[in-house]
Amino acid sequence: MRLSRYFLPVLKETPAEAQIVSHRLMLRAGMIRQQAAGIYSWLPLGYKVLKRIEQIVHEEQQKAGHLPLLMPTLQSAELWQKSGRYDAYGPEMLRFTDRHDREMLYGPTNEEMITDIVAAYVSSYKALPLTLYHIQWKFRDEVRPRFGVMRGREFLMKDGYNFDLTKEDALHAYNRHLVTYLRTYERMGLQAIPMRADSGPIGGDYTHEFLVLAETGESEVFYDSEITELTFGDRAIDYDDKAECQAVLEEFTSRYARTDETHDEAAFGEIPEERRRSARGIEVGQIFYFGTEYSEKLGAMVTDAEGQKVPLHMGSHGIGVSRLLGAIIEASHDDKGIIWPEGVTPFHAGIVNLRQGDAATDAACEQLYAGLQAKGLEPLYDDRDERAGGKFATMDLIGLPWRVTVGPRGLEKGVVELTSRKTGESEEMGLEAAIDRLAQIYEGIA
Amino acid sequence: MRLSRYFLPVLKETPAEAQIVSHRLMLRAGMIRQQAAGIYSWLPLGYKVLKRIEQIVHEEQQKAGHLPLLMPTLQSAELWQKSGRYDAYGPEMLRFTDRHDREMLYGPTNEEMITDIVAAYVSSYKALPLTLYHIQWKFRDEVRPRFGVMRGREFLMKDGYNFDLTKEDALHAYNRHLVTYLRTYERMGLQAIPMRADSGPIGGDYTHEFLVLAETGESEVFYDSEITELTFGDRAIDYDDKAECQAVLEEFTSRYARTDETHDEAAFGEIPEERRRSARGIEVGQIFYFGTEYSEKLGAMVTDAEGQKVPLHMGSHGIGVSRLLGAIIEASHDDKGIIWPEGVTPFHAGIVNLRQGDAATDAACEQLYAGLQAKGLEPLYDDRDERAGGKFATMDLIGLPWRVTVGPRGLEKGVVELTSRKTGESEEMGLEAAIDRLAQIYEGIA
Repeated sequence: MRLSRYFLPVLKETPAEAQIVSHRLMLRAGMIRQQAAGIYSWLPLGYKVLKRIEQIVHEEQQKAGHLPLLMPTLQSAELWQKSGRYDAYGPEMLRFTDRHDREMLYGPTNEEMITDIVAAYVSSYKALPLTLYHIQWKFRDEVRPRFGVMRGREFLMKDGYNFDLTKEDALHAYNRHLVTYLRTYERMGLQAIPMRADSGPIGGDYTHEFLVLAETGESEVFYDSEITELTFGDRAIDYDDKAECQAVLEEFTSRYARTDETHDEAAFGEIPEERRRSARGIEVGQIFYFGTEYSEKLGAMVTDAEGQKVPLHMGSHGIGVSRLLGAIIEASHDDKGIIWPEGVTPFHAGIVNLRQGDAATDAACEQLYAGLQAKGLEPLYDDRDERAGGKFATMDLIGLPWRVTVGPRGLEKGVVELTSRKTGESEEMGLEAAIDRLAQIYEGIA
Repeated sequence: MRLSRYFLPVLKETPAEAQIVSHRLMLRAGMIRQQAAGIYSWLPLGYKVLKRIEQIVHEEQQKAGHLPLLMPTLQSAELWQKSGRYDAYGPEMLRFTDRHDREMLYGPTNEEMITDIVAAYVSSYKALPLTLYHIQWKFRDEVRPRFGVMRGREFLMKDGYNFDLTKEDALHAYNRHLVTYLRTYERMGLQAIPMRADSGPIGGDYTHEFLVLAETGESEVFYDSEITELTFGDRAIDYDDKAECQAVLEEFTSRYARTDETHDEAAFGEIPEERRRSARGIEVGQIFYFGTEYSEKLGAMVTDAEGQKVPLHMGSHGIGVSRLLGAIIEASHDDKGIIWPEGVTPFHAGIVNLRQGDAATDAACEQLYAGLQAKGLEPLYDDRDERAGGKFATMDLIGLPWRVTVGPRGLEKGVVELTSRKTGESEEMGLEAAIDRLAQIYEGIA
């Protein structure tokens, strides 16, 4: 993309209404615009990151055999009356009536609807195991929306639901989700720690939240520092192998890690003192096994191998897709702006032309631009007639992980400059070498 | 995808509520489920086609330099009060108040919001031309939703908006959209004819609707038969070239083609009688230049080269993304089911194993399955223990354009059978030859 043809309304002033750094940077970098309290437009740069995050979530879910579908944003009240949650949900649920006075709502979550779908079509244990998920806009009418996309009212969420014959199978689905989530967050450059969570009004015994450590997190968290040394990495996993998935669960959840809701001072005290940590965290996902409650209320029953009708064992598993943009920025920025991890960056590299209009410099930039595209990369070429300082400031603000600077002086020596946004370090190299280096950096990522 | 692990709830019975063939077939093929009047879940197969259609729309818009963003589904009433449409819109607009009693609505379209965005950030003619678009769910509270996704209440639409300094530039944007739309529909296997449309309450002089001819279409259309011989094909186009885009407009709109709303019996009568056609059509898109009305009301002004403040010239351009699934099926089916054009098929080919459990047949199917995937294709492998008749009926119903049948008798001769869904013709060939043939068919499509 050429910046002269892009729509990137960066702001010079820091918006007064933004209390936390991710909100400030998303506004300043021209990623979002508030349309109403807690309701945002995703401008082209923000939309691009949102799509990359969505793509990673889709890929990791589908690797585990989970099937994508799409439920609508609006639901009829009827299903929620069956589950008993229509009255229980409170003023966070946006309710209204349509022109025929039917009671409707904007879905805050989808347990009822997905259970209704499965109840309608699945009647035999042979159709199991089954995990369906979607990535769809939800609405929760927060009384005080704030922190930009971190606590919006209209937000994008991945919610997945497993349907299994037995508790054992459903706990395998639980473990499978844990593995997919570890992979998903790592691909986004995040360390998200699974912490034992409170099951809350939905009920159930097995639930973990995934928290990203950040000073601005809404939850207080307590953990054994050993847990921060764990990474899933690129190890192979057979999602059908129950023992293998169970081993990952044990590896990542056996050490103490809890939010203030489930914190147990006595258990925490048993960790050697030098490993005890308390910090703040941002919740970016949750997995949950809750048994047969919804299946029973909504009639999701199957015939088992003995011919008996039994209710399905279910769990629901969420990832806060739009919120993740905020969480990533909270975890990865400096005083100049955002620092995107390579996995989610909106463009793979920025090209800064130091002397727009100079024939040789323009030609080198064009060669770089085409060369990166030929490698399957997407560069953002700042081809505006602006001073170098302004171009650098924009690139730093929007946080592309790599910048290639092209100027007449370097070209005389036959070099361009490749700069890491994270370290600030620059290296001179030939133009083709820069293309090759970037292709190598993004191998297996882009 | 292996069918044993997929969620494809095909129905044997024809649902009584469905009046038109696309609605019947989408229900029978397990593509959609009605959740409330005019509100559907997209089950995995339907979701996959929806995503392919979305992808084609994105690609063709971006080739023309149009920039994607994403506006929210909910809007505050305020903007619509500014434009004067809040009261004018009538009961099709879904209105409600949030917990703080603020007036809100579920967006039926986005002229107001996009103009507000551009007004906020664009102040100089140097930022032009600018075309922004999104693909987002909309809601129109139709009094009598029907025909499945063809006239739903919650529907997915691409709506794009151009902002230009002059009428001339805006008409170039209009022509550019016409070209992108021709390419978009052709890639979906559709002939969509641009017909002069009625500008309606939104006002403006330049507007064309794109109509797909189908017996079940909601509009009566009148046209010169010569128009059905035109195709855009894979010709190269420079979207920046005004004359080139204007020539395409002239080529595709100079012959008589109108809906009943703009039909002119006298002009129609001037066409040689043997070329006069009347038929029915389904509207799948519309392009529209309407001038400066919204810019003036919502303050989208720029400084021009002479330093004068002038309002932007705008147009809006829509494609009915979810409705297109219905339109494609209306145009392409037979009594056995859907016939997907290669450009939008949910899976590139079906594999039917005639003797599941037979070691040699299973091995051949696995080889085919892996071989097609290695070519970047996505096969649907019917690996269930079912009779051949049932497997063929499912494949015909869901409409994959190509089927490979693998059985012990063929394998003894060293062949599998490749069958076209469209013609019903089969050809025997070696397994590797079938893989190569399919790769060739989808070259440049998949």
